[in-house]
Amino acid sequence: MHRLRVGMAQINTTVGDFAGNTKKILTAVEEARALNTDVVAFPELAICGYPPEDLLLKPQFIRENLRALEKVAEGSSGITVIVGFVDTEKDIYNAAAVLHNGKLAGVYRKAYLPNYGVFDEDRYFRAGNTCPVYTVAGVGIGINICEDIWYEGGPATAQACAGAEVIINISASPYHAGRGNYRERMLATRATDNVTIFVYVNLVGGQDELVFDGNSMVLDEKGRLLVRGKQFDEDLIVCDLDVESVFRARLHDPRWRKESPNLETQRWQATSLVISEKPLIETKPPLPQRENQVRGLPGEVYDALVLGTRDYIHKNGFEKVAVGLSGGIDSTLVATVAVDALGKSNVVGVSMPSRYSSPGSISDAELLAKNLGIQLLTIPIEPAFQAYLDMLMETLAGTQPDVTEENIQARIRGNILMALSNKFGWIVLTTGNKSEYATGYTTLYGDMAGGFAVLKDVPKTLVKELSIYRNSLAGTELIPAVIINKPPSAELRPDQQDIDSLPPYELLDSILTAYVEEDKSIEQIVGMGLDEAAVRKAAQLVDRSEYKRRQAPPGIKITPRAFGRDRRLPITNRFKEW
Amino acid sequence: MHRLRVGMAQINTTVGDFAGNTKKILTAVEEARALNTDVVAFPELAICGYPPEDLLLKPQFIRENLRALEKVAEGSSGITVIVGFVDTEKDIYNAAAVLHNGKLAGVYRKAYLPNYGVFDEDRYFRAGNTCPVYTVAGVGIGINICEDIWYEGGPATAQACAGAEVIINISASPYHAGRGNYRERMLATRATDNVTIFVYVNLVGGQDELVFDGNSMVLDEKGRLLVRGKQFDEDLIVCDLDVESVFRARLHDPRWRKESPNLETQRWQATSLVISEKPLIETKPPLPQRENQVRGLPGEVYDALVLGTRDYIHKNGFEKVAVGLSGGIDSTLVATVAVDALGKSNVVGVSMPSRYSSPGSISDAELLAKNLGIQLLTIPIEPAFQAYLDMLMETLAGTQPDVTEENIQARIRGNILMALSNKFGWIVLTTGNKSEYATGYTTLYGDMAGGFAVLKDVPKTLVKELSIYRNSLAGTELIPAVIINKPPSAELRPDQQDIDSLPPYELLDSILTAYVEEDKSIEQIVGMGLDEAAVRKAAQLVDRSEYKRRQAPPGIKITPRAFGRDRRLPITNRFKEW
Repeated sequence: MHRLRVGMAQINTTVGDFAGNTKKILTAVEEARALNTDVVAFPELAICGYPPEDLLLKPQFIRENLRALEKVAEGSSGITVIVGFVDTEKDIYNAAAVLHNGKLAGVYRKAYLPNYGVFDEDRYFRAGNTCPVYTVAGVGIGINICEDIWYEGGPATAQACAGAEVIINISASPYHAGRGNYRERMLATRATDNVTIFVYVNLVGGQDELVFDGNSMVLDEKGRLLVRGKQFDEDLIVCDLDVESVFRARLHDPRWRKESPNLETQRWQATSLVISEKPLIETKPPLPQRENQVRGLPGEVYDALVLGTRDYIHKNGFEKVAVGLSGGIDSTLVATVAVDALGKSNVVGVSMPSRYSSPGSISDAELLAKNLGIQLLTIPIEPAFQAYLDMLMETLAGTQPDVTEENIQARIRGNILMALSNKFGWIVLTTGNKSEYATGYTTLYGDMAGGFAVLKDVPKTLVKELSIYRNSLAGTELIPAVIINKPPSAELRPDQQDIDSLPPYELLDSILTAYVEEDKSIEQIVGMGLDEAAVRKAAQLVDRSEYKRRQAPPGIKITPRAFGRDRRLPITNRFKEW
Repeated sequence: MHRLRVGMAQINTTVGDFAGNTKKILTAVEEARALNTDVVAFPELAICGYPPEDLLLKPQFIRENLRALEKVAEGSSGITVIVGFVDTEKDIYNAAAVLHNGKLAGVYRKAYLPNYGVFDEDRYFRAGNTCPVYTVAGVGIGINICEDIWYEGGPATAQACAGAEVIINISASPYHAGRGNYRERMLATRATDNVTIFVYVNLVGGQDELVFDGNSMVLDEKGRLLVRGKQFDEDLIVCDLDVESVFRARLHDPRWRKESPNLETQRWQATSLVISEKPLIETKPPLPQRENQVRGLPGEVYDALVLGTRDYIHKNGFEKVAVGLSGGIDSTLVATVAVDALGKSNVVGVSMPSRYSSPGSISDAELLAKNLGIQLLTIPIEPAFQAYLDMLMETLAGTQPDVTEENIQARIRGNILMALSNKFGWIVLTTGNKSEYATGYTTLYGDMAGGFAVLKDVPKTLVKELSIYRNSLAGTELIPAVIINKPPSAELRPDQQDIDSLPPYELLDSILTAYVEEDKSIEQIVGMGLDEAAVRKAAQLVDRSEYKRRQAPPGIKITPRAFGRDRRLPITNRFKEW
């Protein structure tokens, strides 16, 4: 029985690190070769990292990418390697190289360029319009790239009609909660529709605000999952494909019994090229068994935060982070994620109590630091706070205390954390969550000061869920229950509670999902049964806080629409729905 | 002799302000009607403001835009109105409505969608593919939108071939230094190539980081400028067009002597529609004479900064601003621009001397405030600085003073300015220039703290030029010469000068233009004759400061490539050319 042995190398690339990415690719090629793999595939733009953004406008970046591709080609003897790179011919293309026996045997150019959400591919690339089918070890293979398979009747269909029994799609598909499941169902549909085996290789790793979750997979021509790679970790998955069963299934499919299959193929020009024939004798050692991971929320989200944080810190050349610990649940979860990402010796907690801090907050931060095994610095802010009040006494004479005095405290803490960052080379992790960024319930240059906002896209209610999840994983109260259960407070004035300024978080988060992520109108959200006054207030707060978010640090996208390049609203904007 | 009377209403719209924009449009329509204008044109997306960005993803925003268009249509009796709006039919289009006698008579849909630089139009719009020619007062008119005329052989050519003698292009073309000149030469070429009169109506006003400069113009079929609107101000320009001369010129043009003119038109489907016939009797009063402004740099740039600042402050509902005055040239120019934009009673200078401030700096700030006639608050930062040093003494024990202690001072100033902002509702204008933002020679949450960065895209050498220009306009030393001529210093440690950390600004700015705005390689820049060590150092500083710029406030684009959405680089990036 003829089987094609395919490798999926879901590696963690770094944007612009041509030497590092090339080394990772060549190592995986060697491993795949040792397993008698016929063809090994790497993620989209694996050579240069994804997304390279405006680096693509630098000709020297494109040239380095071509030099790196040559090096990978040199390592392709006796195996076919499919790897994402930037192709160039008058314009540039998001492309997949087919390398075999030291040579560039073919190039596929991405046909569908995403230009929505976080994607700007029309800004850079010209779209391809041919759909080559390559014969590798006697099997017809159609190669395409990420977005190309997200639409019915795309290049995969043209390739299947032109003789491809296997489709290899190389991707860099960013994570958000539940995305993996949706992807798998979509791929199953495509595989069934085209009576073709789908091999899906996805990037893994964090890149600024995005986390790529790996989760590569193979689905057979009946849409059944054959194998799945790790989520949030590098993996080399090797799998034998029974291409004869594709042939058999098509014999029974009325669409394949005509001269030319009755599928939409006009847009794409199909070509074909033989890379290698079917070997006369096949003797491959059997592959080890793999277990397919089954993941649930919130474990998936937690791991995304850990990977996103680790990669942001490490890929930018840092080791250690500082986190201001208030005794609240947000800073607690950030510190916990940081410890899981970087190790406890690389996380420093900083307690900065003020005249308004409750004794409980201070002791809760201490207990947490003890549970996590991290260093805790304690720097009370009263001397600076009093100095500001004195310095401003004359200018503010006759005014009443308000948010001004609250923000001064938050900004003193920001200044202290940044001083530690400057002196010791630590990155400051900020602790605000998505509900706070949405409503502006956060201080610019205060608690928003820092290099990376771990929870920027995590709603407050999910912060709680994640904390409970992490404790369940630990089997102990790693995160003290008193922290999880206390009423949220900024502690910037006596007896302050979040609920004084905001709707309760359960209600608020429902509103924010509808308003921010789904663009629902006030009427539609009220129609969901949510309190109208709260809906109008929340929408107003969201619209008025755009200027703050524009100066926020980057943070990890985990929802379908994060703040940042995913949601591009003007600051100057008089459109009011509330 | 038959003449078409055209009005160009370059109005200052606000994004999302449907009521306000509609009112401005209807007022201009009335004025144009009073002048017996046949057709009056408004800028691109004048109904909703430009660019609306992700507001376009809200169905309720699109609906409001259609309701506003109806109101404008109701005001169109006896005149033809061309106005930009969002058209919708399954998808959305960047469109121009042709309104006449209370009705929507026709719609043109933008065919070329810009998706580079600051533009993201592929993110939102579907492209149009028909090129209607409308007969207005017996004259064939082709309407198209902004980008449509920037390429040879575009819709204007198809419209000219199909009988248009006049092309009306409605635009929202952002300013950068020298852009107006380039636009005029381009329009002259198009007019000559197509033997057609070109009427170009451009938006005016500031919108976040962009300034639209107006500068509407009419070029006749020989490419001669007939009239030009104001730059950086609203204007209604009315002009009589001699369409018979187009007819005469085409009689002599071999391309028009064939059955169908020999111009590239395949891509566009031409249609035609009669809006109004040529009147039997024409008796129009003559129009008043206009003077065409002739502008030079740096006056043009200065006015762009004034308009951009005024519109950002006012359109966001603010009146007053605070500026930290260091006695240096950057904060001096910002305060001067602010006074020109908002009036002296709406600008507050804040002097925040430290132990390292020279007596000259303090007195220079005082002199400037006196010259400008603005209020000056003086808040020495020593008490807070000493408090921080004491609070951090234990934690920083054994370390040497470095940039940490410098940044603490800058962040104290940021905190003070933000306290004034919070208490009194003033927007803080930040004072950093493009050379500083480029190299990271600026403190996050310190001198970068504020709502609007007036000089964000102005290189240091241009800051000096603009100051000299402003003095020449005043005819006095409004900006004290001592400020213009002193060596730049951050005054954050004893005897500090910028030149200790950076190449001289004349050299640095040449490098930055080549590296940041032109994507030149190190080799190319060195090949321009610039010092290699300085080039490598500057490029390294630019690359390493991306994380700071990501948290910078918005500022006014005045160069071909500004930081912000014009230049989208990853923070996590290992591509190194230096």
